[in-house]
Parts: sequence; C-alpha cells; structure tokens
Amino acid sequence: MKHDFYSNKNILITGGLGFLGSNLAIRLVELGASVTLYDGLIDDLGANYFNTDPIKDRVEVVTANVGDRSVMDGHVPHKDIIFNIGMHSCHLDSMKDPVFDIETNIVPQINFLESLRSQNPRARVVYVGTRAQYGRVENPPITETTPLNPMDIYSVSKQAVEWYHMLYSKICGLRPTSLRLGNTYGPRHQMRHAKYGVQNYLMRLALDNQQIEIFGDGNQKRELIFVDDVIECLLLLGETDQCVDQVYAIGTEKSVAFVELVKEIIKACGSGSYTHVPWPEDRKIIEVGDVVTDYAKLTAHTGWIPSTRLSEGLRITAEYYREHKTHYW
Amino acid sequence: MKHDFYSNKNILITGGLGFLGSNLAIRLVELGASVTLYDGLIDDLGANYFNTDPIKDRVEVVTANVGDRSVMDGHVPHKDIIFNIGMHSCHLDSMKDPVFDIETNIVPQINFLESLRSQNPRARVVYVGTRAQYGRVENPPITETTPLNPMDIYSVSKQAVEWYHMLYSKICGLRPTSLRLGNTYGPRHQMRHAKYGVQNYLMRLALDNQQIEIFGDGNQKRELIFVDDVIECLLLLGETDQCVDQVYAIGTEKSVAFVELVKEIIKACGSGSYTHVPWPEDRKIIEVGDVVTDYAKLTAHTGWIPSTRLSEGLRITAEYYREHKTHYW
Repeated sequence: MKHDFYSNKNILITGGLGFLGSNLAIRLVELGASVTLYDGLIDDLGANYFNTDPIKDRVEVVTANVGDRSVMDGHVPHKDIIFNIGMHSCHLDSMKDPVFDIETNIVPQINFLESLRSQNPRARVVYVGTRAQYGRVENPPITETTPLNPMDIYSVSKQAVEWYHMLYSKICGLRPTSLRLGNTYGPRHQMRHAKYGVQNYLMRLALDNQQIEIFGDGNQKRELIFVDDVIECLLLLGETDQCVDQVYAIGTEKSVAFVELVKEIIKACGSGSYTHVPWPEDRKIIEVGDVVTDYAKLTAHTGWIPSTRLSEGLRITAEYYREHKTHYW
Repeated sequence: MKHDFYSNKNILITGGLGFLGSNLAIRLVELGASVTLYDGLIDDLGANYFNTDPIKDRVEVVTANVGDRSVMDGHVPHKDIIFNIGMHSCHLDSMKDPVFDIETNIVPQINFLESLRSQNPRARVVYVGTRAQYGRVENPPITETTPLNPMDIYSVSKQAVEWYHMLYSKICGLRPTSLRLGNTYGPRHQMRHAKYGVQNYLMRLALDNQQIEIFGDGNQKRELIFVDDVIECLLLLGETDQCVDQVYAIGTEKSVAFVELVKEIIKACGSGSYTHVPWPEDRKIIEVGDVVTDYAKLTAHTGWIPSTRLSEGLRITAEYYREHKTHYW
C-alpha cells in the first residue's frame, strides 16, 4: 500500500493542532502511525482542538512551547519522523515587532534542535519553510537555487531556521529535509483574521457574503496549493531517503492571478463580491510580486505532482467551512 | 582633505575596543570625529583597552552589551554614523553551542536595531558581515550575487543580522550598508587563542619561534586583507550615499595559498617553523575551500582598492606585536 512506510511509526508533529499539522495527523493516523501532536497554542496562530476532531481519541496531544526543553526532551526520543511545522507565521507582525519574531521563532527553534541533538540526534526531520525565503524573484520560475531574498523579518527567521536544520546534520548527524512551502489552502486553517493565510480568510468573507478588497489590480500571480497535496508531499519527503539534507521548492501546475482566485472563491462559495482598493503601504513593501515555481527536483526525487484542481479544492474547502464554521469564526 | 566628511561627526562604534573598532577609532579621531566606543567585553573576544592607547583620552568608552537597551538607547541619539562591528565571532564555538551564538549575536543585534528604530531611525549604519556568509563557493570568484551558503551557525547569524539591517530600511528608514569582510590581519587583533582570526594567531606562534601546524596540504587559497585597507573601506562606505541599502564583497588583488601565507609570516617574523598535520574533523566540516573575490562593485561605488602588499602588511604587523606583545599574550 502507498505510504505503508508510516504504519506503526512514531511521529511527532510540532504545530500539531494547526492547519498543516492536523491535516497531516489525520492522514498519519489513517496510515497506522502513532502520532504525538505538540503545540504551543500561541495567540493568533492556527491551533484549534476541533481540527483534530476525527482523531481526537487516537493521538497524544502535548501543549507546550516548541523550545521548552523541559517538555520537548521527553517527547523527542524514539520518534522515527518529526514534522517541524510549528512557527509563528505573520509577515506583517514581524515587521512591527521583530524582537517578538526572533523570540517566538528563532530562539525556540534552536532550542528544539538542541533537544533533538540531546535526545535523538539522528532523527529524520521534515521542516516546513516558506516560499517567502525567496522574496521578490528577479528571474522566475523559482527553483531551489533561486537567490534568497527574504523581504520581512519572519522570512529571514524561516531561512535562518532552515539553515540551522541543515547544519545540525553536521553537528550531530540529524537527517533534515526542508520544504519551502507557498500559499496553501483547505480545511482546518485559522479563519479569525487575515494576518496570514489570506487565501483562506477570503473564503470566510465570501461565505459570509461580504465584499473582498483586492489591493491594486490584483494581477499578481499566485500559486495556490491544496492542503491534501501538501500533506501528500510531506509524507513523501519523510519516507524518501534521497530527501535527507535536501531543500525543495513546491508549486502548482499553473499560477493564477489574485483577482481570478477571488472570483473562483466567490464561485465556490456561491456568495460574496469584490472591489479594488489601493495597496496599503505596509503591505506594499513586503509584496513579493508574481509567484511561479519549477518543482522538477521535488518530482524527480519523490514523484510528487499536484493533483487537485483549484476549483475542486475550493469546492471541498467551502463545504468544510460551511459545515463547521462555528468552530472557526 | 580626504575623508573631511568625518570632521566633527558623531560616531558610534560597537565592538569599539576590538580589532577593527579600535583601528577605526584611531583613524576617526585623527580625522576630527567625536567617537564613542561601545563594547560588551565578551570573554574570548578582542576587547583590549590597550588597543585604544593612542587615543585613550580622546574617546568615550561605554562597556555594556550591544543589546542592552537601557544603555544603548542613551548613546544612539545624535550619532551621524554607526559602525556596527561588535558580534561574537567564532565559527567553531557556534557549532558546539548554537544557543549561545543566537543569544550573543542575533538577540542583541535585533535589540540594537530596535534601539536605532526608537532613538535614531534614519541613522547611517555600516554593518560588518562576513565572507563566510557565502560558505564554500561553487563558482568563484565571489561577488555580491554569489549564492549564500553559510556553513556554520555563526555565519547563519551574520547573514540573518545583515538581512535584519536591510529590512530596517523599510521598517523605519534606516540607512544600512553591509560589508562582507574576509580574513583581515594587522595590529590590535586578539592573540590569546586561534578560535577566530587564525591568520593573526599564527604570527604569535612565529614570533615565539613555535611550530605552526598546517591542516592538510595548505593549498587552499585565502585572501588576506590588511586592517588599514579595511578601515579605509569602512570610511568610504560610511561617507558614500550610493552605498546606502547596499551589500559589498571585498577582497585582495590576488589570493595566496595558506602554506605560502605561513611562509610569509615566518619570513616577516624572522622566526618560527611549520609542519603539515591532518585536518581535524571539526575544522574540516566548516572549511570553505578556496577564496577568490571580485570586488568590482565596491571599487565602482567608492573607489576602494587594496593598497598594502602582504609582505608589507605582515612586516608592520610583526613590528607592532613584537613591541607590544605583553599586552596581547
């Protein structure tokens, strides 16, 4: 069976109650893995106990800061694979309060890596980075060798933490992989605010029949990856030996203009409208422009290709939030 | 007069009691600047009161951590130029204790930038980065667009802090410049250990008529920049408007094989010997290979070229330490 690899494996997921963490956990439990969800329950982030409702009696949940070694050291041993997803992700906030970003991202992550070094130094770790490590790209498409040009403090922290993971391979034999993930949408994202994952928040507006504001002409291209495709990718990365010490870019078959995405969301929801407004200054300075990615390396090493069309993914997503909206906003 | 710009300017130098900071301060005092030296006096680093002996009654010295805002906030206002040199620089130690590196480099530096944002948000800041941000380079020569590939925790921190400086331009209008500095030698370096600035420590061994150990064949190419040339570069960067928001690589006219450098040092000292030993494992994994830099951008923007031949620089350096060795080891 596909992903048989995960049967009876011991898995730790940081950010386990969040968007990616919970979707991944649901798949892993289906595959027969023994899963520990570790989550810092940080304000404004995506932790939501309802996310794990389908598996709530079949996973261990630990709520503590990822960098709290008094807790983490007890959960790291004997884990076969660790998916390190839990970081504080807000581009805009990080520019307002850089110290907070460093304290909630870099410092806990280095302590987490020290926990691995101490308790499970050769652990297989899949780190979820961000496409924003590339920032605005001069020569698309993006590949793994595209120059790094992070345009906000958070994206610098993500790049630094990616490098730290890679260096622990030399420090203690850690076996890391990094996935530089772009805009992902689907069930189980936080829907309380638009500070990150705006592609998801827009669906809330549409479902509530609100007007969506598009900054500028909305012609900037985006790649929207359905969460199930990302989970499939994470599973492949975790089980493929060739991915150790490697970094991967990920994308979609084709990019979509932001304004077209908004139209698709409105269509999937059957409600909502949109209007164009000028770019707010704070958004403009961190806007990365068009996003087009060549993920040939990822396909070559794992066989991964995106399999969910945007209209289909949005339909599934709209259905989920329509049914469960009381748990999300 | 050359560098008239600095006459009566208010200057702050972090790491002011160290190698670069003190040499820079001596030049700035000669040029009629009003100089504040700020230094954290961190163990094992280069702070040495004797470094500032020629100007000791003509500078202000503040000893506190760069990230201590209760002190820094009082010294940042009304400074025309800030040379931010003070960081904890040891490649090897950073791999043994990454948490310490983050706590002594990233955390203080982000607090220092917050101090600027609060007290002098449009300050002109020259940050001294490191060539090691490039790590091992696939396609020499190194330029500003060479892919970043830091090979130890310290070099990641240096790159992250460079990016933070550049982003504060967007956050508060800061006017930063970064110089990615390679191996620098000359008077006023710390000579107590070889943990960083090994090109300087070798001279201590030679002056004491000891045997220098060369790892492997010693054929790896290095660029050795004389400290006076670096100080000239820093002065140019600080006074040139075109350098705002820019990053620069710096090098020498030609690279020298490490084994040839050792021979030159022994010649300049008139004593010492050398032998070849195998690479220690901890050094090998962070060794960056040949270093060859194209500094055309720096020359184009500032007119800087290196002016001190290696033999001449080593002669001056040997003379300095021979005379003042009791202050250095």
